[in-house]
Amino acid sequence: MRLPSPVLSAPLVPTVLVLLVLGAGPLAAEPPDFDEILSPGASGDRADQAAWSPDGALLGYRWDDGSGQALWVFDPASAEHRRLVTAREGDLGALDAYHWVPGSSARRWRLVVESGGDLFLVSGGDGATVTRLTDTAAEELDPKLSPDGSRVAFVREADLYLIELPAGERRARERALTTGGTPGEILHGTTDWVYWEEIWGRAGTGFWWSPDGQRIAYYRFEEAPVATYPLLDVAPDTGDTPAEILGAGTEVAQYPQVTEQKYPKTGTDNPVVRLGVLEVDSEQPGESTVWLETGDPADAYLARLHWLSGGGAVAVERLNREQNRLDLLRCGVAGEGAGSCRELLSETAETWVNVTDSTRFLEDGRFLWLSERTGWAQLYLYSAEGRLVRPLTRGERNASLVAVQADTEGIASVVISTSLPALQGTVLLGNAGRRLERVALDGGDDTEPALLFSGDTAGRGWHRGSLADGAAPDSPWLHTWSSADDPGWQVVRGGDGRELGRLPSQGPDFDPATLPAWEFLTVPGPEGSTLPARRLRALGVVEGEKAPAVIYHYGGPESQVVVDRWGSRGRDLWHKWMAVRGYEVLMVDNLASSYFGKHGADRIHRRFGEVNLAAQKAAVAFLTEEGAVDPKRIGLWGWSGGGSNTLYCLLRSPGTWKAGVSGAPVTDWRFYDTIWTERYLDRPQDNPQGYRDSSPLTHAAELEDALLIVHGTADDNVHPQNAYVLMQALIDAGLSFEDAIYPGQKHGFQAHEQAHFLRRMTEFFDRKLGEGGS
Amino acid sequence: MRLPSPVLSAPLVPTVLVLLVLGAGPLAAEPPDFDEILSPGASGDRADQAAWSPDGALLGYRWDDGSGQALWVFDPASAEHRRLVTAREGDLGALDAYHWVPGSSARRWRLVVESGGDLFLVSGGDGATVTRLTDTAAEELDPKLSPDGSRVAFVREADLYLIELPAGERRARERALTTGGTPGEILHGTTDWVYWEEIWGRAGTGFWWSPDGQRIAYYRFEEAPVATYPLLDVAPDTGDTPAEILGAGTEVAQYPQVTEQKYPKTGTDNPVVRLGVLEVDSEQPGESTVWLETGDPADAYLARLHWLSGGGAVAVERLNREQNRLDLLRCGVAGEGAGSCRELLSETAETWVNVTDSTRFLEDGRFLWLSERTGWAQLYLYSAEGRLVRPLTRGERNASLVAVQADTEGIASVVISTSLPALQGTVLLGNAGRRLERVALDGGDDTEPALLFSGDTAGRGWHRGSLADGAAPDSPWLHTWSSADDPGWQVVRGGDGRELGRLPSQGPDFDPATLPAWEFLTVPGPEGSTLPARRLRALGVVEGEKAPAVIYHYGGPESQVVVDRWGSRGRDLWHKWMAVRGYEVLMVDNLASSYFGKHGADRIHRRFGEVNLAAQKAAVAFLTEEGAVDPKRIGLWGWSGGGSNTLYCLLRSPGTWKAGVSGAPVTDWRFYDTIWTERYLDRPQDNPQGYRDSSPLTHAAELEDALLIVHGTADDNVHPQNAYVLMQALIDAGLSFEDAIYPGQKHGFQAHEQAHFLRRMTEFFDRKLGEGGS
Repeated sequence: MRLPSPVLSAPLVPTVLVLLVLGAGPLAAEPPDFDEILSPGASGDRADQAAWSPDGALLGYRWDDGSGQALWVFDPASAEHRRLVTAREGDLGALDAYHWVPGSSARRWRLVVESGGDLFLVSGGDGATVTRLTDTAAEELDPKLSPDGSRVAFVREADLYLIELPAGERRARERALTTGGTPGEILHGTTDWVYWEEIWGRAGTGFWWSPDGQRIAYYRFEEAPVATYPLLDVAPDTGDTPAEILGAGTEVAQYPQVTEQKYPKTGTDNPVVRLGVLEVDSEQPGESTVWLETGDPADAYLARLHWLSGGGAVAVERLNREQNRLDLLRCGVAGEGAGSCRELLSETAETWVNVTDSTRFLEDGRFLWLSERTGWAQLYLYSAEGRLVRPLTRGERNASLVAVQADTEGIASVVISTSLPALQGTVLLGNAGRRLERVALDGGDDTEPALLFSGDTAGRGWHRGSLADGAAPDSPWLHTWSSADDPGWQVVRGGDGRELGRLPSQGPDFDPATLPAWEFLTVPGPEGSTLPARRLRALGVVEGEKAPAVIYHYGGPESQVVVDRWGSRGRDLWHKWMAVRGYEVLMVDNLASSYFGKHGADRIHRRFGEVNLAAQKAAVAFLTEEGAVDPKRIGLWGWSGGGSNTLYCLLRSPGTWKAGVSGAPVTDWRFYDTIWTERYLDRPQDNPQGYRDSSPLTHAAELEDALLIVHGTADDNVHPQNAYVLMQALIDAGLSFEDAIYPGQKHGFQAHEQAHFLRRMTEFFDRKLGEGGS
Repeated sequence: MRLPSPVLSAPLVPTVLVLLVLGAGPLAAEPPDFDEILSPGASGDRADQAAWSPDGALLGYRWDDGSGQALWVFDPASAEHRRLVTAREGDLGALDAYHWVPGSSARRWRLVVESGGDLFLVSGGDGATVTRLTDTAAEELDPKLSPDGSRVAFVREADLYLIELPAGERRARERALTTGGTPGEILHGTTDWVYWEEIWGRAGTGFWWSPDGQRIAYYRFEEAPVATYPLLDVAPDTGDTPAEILGAGTEVAQYPQVTEQKYPKTGTDNPVVRLGVLEVDSEQPGESTVWLETGDPADAYLARLHWLSGGGAVAVERLNREQNRLDLLRCGVAGEGAGSCRELLSETAETWVNVTDSTRFLEDGRFLWLSERTGWAQLYLYSAEGRLVRPLTRGERNASLVAVQADTEGIASVVISTSLPALQGTVLLGNAGRRLERVALDGGDDTEPALLFSGDTAGRGWHRGSLADGAAPDSPWLHTWSSADDPGWQVVRGGDGRELGRLPSQGPDFDPATLPAWEFLTVPGPEGSTLPARRLRALGVVEGEKAPAVIYHYGGPESQVVVDRWGSRGRDLWHKWMAVRGYEVLMVDNLASSYFGKHGADRIHRRFGEVNLAAQKAAVAFLTEEGAVDPKRIGLWGWSGGGSNTLYCLLRSPGTWKAGVSGAPVTDWRFYDTIWTERYLDRPQDNPQGYRDSSPLTHAAELEDALLIVHGTADDNVHPQNAYVLMQALIDAGLSFEDAIYPGQKHGFQAHEQAHFLRRMTEFFDRKLGEGGS
C-alpha cells in the first residue's frame, strides 16, 4: 500500500505545456469548470516511457502527435525528434511498451515491442521493419534483452522462455527455460501479488540476466500455502454465456465470474520463495538451476538480487519476516561454492528496516547501500567485503540513488535525489520538494554534493532525472520538473545543464494559472511540534462570513501529502476547484511522515491512527484559531490508508469534523497483506491489542459524523470486504452513513469513474458542509 | 419472483391484540415514533405454525408466553390451551418446526420436531418425552410422516432417508431410500432453487407418500446443465481462517467465501427433472424406482404430483417450457403399465397457463381443477376420466381452493377463497379483500356458494381459513383476519361460526389506531379505465400549502398492492408513519394486476413496463388534479419487480417523479430466472425486442430524476449483478445516483437491515422531496 501514487491508476500527470507557453490566453481570466478539469483528454497529454538507449546516445519515448500512437527518439547530438514506428505498422495494432536492444544506434536500431500481449521485433534505420516474435493467447510478460542483444527472455504463464532474435537469415527461435510453472501454484521468473505490491513497489520483476549473458537468476514462488481471496467480476467480458442473445449492441454476460487471488493476509502463510540460477544454453536449463542457500524460505523475504560484475556471484537482500533485519548475502552461482551464501552486511532496527532501490554494485566489487540507521535515509559506500568505506550523504534529509556515472578515467560519481534545503524559508518544508545532486565517490570525507541543475526552477518543486546508468557526467540526461501549481516539463539537458530539447506535450484546454496557488506553511503540532502543511484559500468568501473547509490526508508511515509536485490527475485539480467554489483546503503531514525521517516513522510502530489523528486535530485547531473557516463546517477525506485514517479520525474524535469521505479504506488491519501490515504492526498474533486499537472496525459504533464510504468491487489491493464489513458494523449499530460502491473498479479508479466519484464527493460535501447542511 | 411477500423475510405480520382489546390506552392519542414502529419486538408477536392434528381434533401452534418458545395445543372440545413441550426440554434447544404424527389424540400425542437441523420425536400425554432421531452435521429437511404414523421420511444432502419411529422397545432405525444425491449435481426428493421459487412458491417439496404408505413418489433433479451464479459472502461464519487470532470478541473471517448457486437464467438450460416412484420396503428402494414416462424431461416442468386414492396411480401436472400448455397426466406406478402416462386434461392459453394449488383428487377419482380460461380463476369439477362435470364458481372474480369437506354421508363440499363482492361500494375494490365460501360439490348447476362466516368483519379485510382437509363441515376451523388498518386475530370457530377460542398474541407497544387509516378509492386510468387505489392523507399540512407524496407500487403481472390486509412488517407501517410526517401516500394497481383477471394480466405478455407506467402516471395525474399534493415533490418506490418498475417509470417518463427508490431490482430481464421470466416474456432468443424494451438497463442513459438503488450482496433471487450493472451504465453515462448496498442481505432484508434501509429511504425522500430538496 503506497500513496500518493496508489490513489489513481494513471501513471503520471499530464502536462499543460502549450497553454503555459502561450501564457494568458483567452481563458486566462476564467478558471476551468468541473468538466474541463476532469473529462478525459481535457487534462492534456504528454510523452511517456522515456528511455535512454543502452549506449546513452538516444532517448526513446512514446507520443501521439495527432496522427496516432508512435515510438519516437530524440537525438541530443542533432537535437532532432524522429518517429521510429507507429502502432499501425505491421501486425502491431498497439504500442504497450518497448525495450531497446543493446547495440542499437541512431543508424541501425532495434526495439522489442509489447503489443496486445505479444512480442514484436521492430528494427530499422530509415524505415522500420516489424517482425512478430510470438503469437499466443497467453501474454508474454517482462521481456528482457540479453546483454549482447541477441536474445530476449520473458515470462509466459509462470514459466521463463527465451527467443533468439532473428538476424539475417536466422528466424526467431523460442524455447522454454523452465517448466512446471502454474499460476496460483508455482511461479518461475515472476512474483506473486504481495511481492509485486509491497517488495517491488509495482515495478516488480522476477529474473535477471547475468552480465555475461550466460545465466539467468530467477524467482521460484510456491503459492500453495497462500490463502485465496475471491474477487467477483459482475460484468465479465466473456463469450462463455449467451451474452449476445439479443443481437449486436446489447452484449451482457448473464453470469459473473470469480477471480481467485492468492493474497496472504497479515498473520497467514506467505508464499515460499527461492532464488535459483540457470544456465541459458544448457540442454534443459531448468534442470541446471543452482538454488541459492538463503536459509528457510518460509521465514524470509528475498527482496532484491544483484549480479556482481563478472557473473560469478550474485548479491541477495534477505529480509526476515519480522522485517527488523535485512541481510545482504553474497552467493556463488557456479563451480565450487555454487549456491552457498555468506553475509556481507546486516542492517537491523528495533522497529523495521526498509528495502530500498539504492543498492548498487560497482565494477570493482564495492557497493552503494542506503541506510536509515541515523534516522534519515543516507547513502553509504561499502567495500567488496562489506566494510563501510564512507557515508556519501549527510544531514537531516532523505536521499536516494538515481544513477552511477563514470568519467573517462573510471572515476565514478553518483547522482542522488534529496530534499530541497528550504522552501519558503523553512528548512522543514524543504522536504516538500526534491532536487538532484552529484556526489563524487572517492572525493574524501568532506566532499560536498554538487547541485545537478541550478536554473530558475532549482529552488522549488520536484526535480527528477533519468540518466543512463554508467554514462559519463557530461552525457545528456532527461530532467523532469513540476510544482504543485505548475505541471512542468520534460527537458533533455547536456551534462552542463543546458537545454538540448524537450519532450512533446499537449493541453490541457484550460490555463492552470487561473486556479488558486498552493501556499506552503507550518502549523503548530502536538507536544510543541511544528507540522508541514499546504493550503488553498477559499475564493469568493463574503466579507465577514466564514468558509467551509476540506482537509485531505493520507497519514500512513513514511509518506507525505505536503508535496510541491503536480498532483495526480483529478484529486489535486479537484482541490483547486473546490477552493474556487469557496472551500478552504488544507493538508497537514503528521509526525510519522517523511518529514521527520525514520525515527519519526517509528512512532507508529505497532499502533496506527493516533499520531495522524493528533496532526489532523492540529489542522482543525489551526483553522479554527485563524478564524477564516467555520469550525462546524470542516470535512475530512482520504483514500486507501487515508481512507482508513479518515475513519479512525471520525470515530476516535467525533464532532471534530462534520463529514468525512473514506475511499477504499482498510477497515480492519487483519484484512490487509502480510508484508505491508506486519512491517509496522507485526503479526496480529503478536500484537492483538495494537490491531484492535488501530482498526476502525473496532470503533465503528462511535460514529457521529456524516460519512461516505467509497470502494471498488474489483479492488485486489484493499479488498472490498473492508467496506462491506464496516458497513455491516455500522448497520448493526443502527448508524446512518452513505456508501458509493463502484462495480469493477480497482484500488485506483479509472479516470471516468474517478470523475464520477469526485462529483459525488462534491455533492456530499456541499450537502453536509453547506449552510445548514443535512 | 413474488410480491408482496418477497419484500420481507418475516413470514407474517405480528398482531397487536392486547392493545386493541384494551382500547384507547395511555398511548392512544400519540402515534408511535420510528423506533417504536421498526425496532424488533416492538411490533409484537403472535402464535404461529398453527396446524390441525390429522384427525382434526386439536390445533397445534408455537408460542412464547414469556417463559420461552414452546409448542401448544388448543382443544376446541374443552376450549383449553395446553403447553406440550418447551424448547428447553431434552436436547431440543430450539423448536424450528413440528409435524403431527398420525394417530395422535389429546390423550396420547406424538410430534416430529425439527430443531437445529436435527429431528426429534416428542411424545406425551400429560408430560412430554423427547427422543433424538438424528444427530448429524448435515441438515434433515422436509420430514414427512407415513400415513400410518410409523415412519418419517426426509431429505439429507440431496438423498431421501427413512426412520422407523421408536415404539415400545423398538429404537429408531434409519436407512437411505436413495443414494447418489449430490447438491449441485443430482438431487433426490427435493427441488432446485428455481423450482422452489417459481414452481412451488417457496413452499416446495420433492417427495410424496402414497396413501397406503407403501411407496414414495419423488423428484430427481439433474443440475449439471444449469449454469452457476457465484455469490460472495464477505463475512462468513467460518473457522477455516485465523478468525479469532485477536482473542474472544473480535472474531472476523479474514477471507470471504463464494457460494456457487445453480441458477438457470432466462434462455439458458434448465435442470433435467424426472419423477419416480420407489417401494419403501424394497431391499434397495432406490433401485426399485419406476420412472414416470412424462416425455422429454429437458423440455418441460413437472410442476405437481398427486396420489390417486388406492395408491395405484399418480397424477402429474406437466407444463411445457413455453408455459402455454399444462397437461394433467395419469401415470401408473406398479404392475402392468407402471410408469406409463395418459393425458386426463390439457389446459392451454395463447399467453401462458399458471400452475395452481387447487388441484385435488377425491376418493371416487373425480378431481377439482382451477382454470383461468374464462379470464378469471374458477374452480371446476372433473370426472375421473377428465371430463368436465361442472364449474363450481362463476363471475368476474378469482377463486382458489382452501379445503375439501365431507359430511357423514360422504357428500363433499369445498371451501374456497374469493374476493369480496364489493368494498366501499365499488365492485372493483372487492378484490382488495378475500372471504371464505362453501360450495356443495353435487349441488347442481345453479347452487350459490354460502358464506363461511358472516360476523361483523365479514364485509371487509382479508379472511383466511385453516380447515382440516376431509373433515366434516361442522368441524372446528381456524379463522384468520386482518385489514389494512387492523392487525386482526386468529380465532378458532365451530362449524356454525361461533368463536371457540383465540390463539395468543402480544403487543405491539403502540396502538395502530393512532395511525392514519387507509382510504380505498378508484382513480381514472388509461383509455377510460378505472384503477383501484388506496391512499393515506398527509397529516399536519398547513392550510394553503401542498404536501409531498410517495407512491408505492409493484406492478408485476397478477399482483396487487391495493389490498385490505395488514401489511408486511416495516413497509406498511412506514407508509403510515410517513403520512404522520406530512406525506401523502398512494398506491395504484395497473390493468395487468389481479384486479383485472387473467385477460388483464395477459396485457404484459412479451412486454413489461408500459402497462404499469400508464397506471403510475395516472396516479400522478390524479394527485395533481386533486390539488393537495405538490406535483414537483412526488416520489416513487418499489422492491423487487417494483424496483424494476420504479426504474422503468423514471427512465421512460423523466420529470414525472422527482425521486425514486429502487430496491433489489431486476435491471435487465436476461439476469432473471427461466421459469418466472419466460412465463411472461418468452425466451430472450424468441423475443429480443421485448427484452430490450422491457429492461431498465436499455434506458439507463435517460435518467433525469434523483435515484437511490438498494440491493443486498447475498440476494440469491434477484442477483446483486442487477444493481451493479445498472450502476456501471449510469456511471458510463456520467449520471448521478445514490446506492445503498447491504452486505449479506438477501432478497428480503432482515428486520434490522430493513429498518436501516427505511431510515435511509426516509432521509433520501426528505432531502429530495422536502422544500427546495436537493
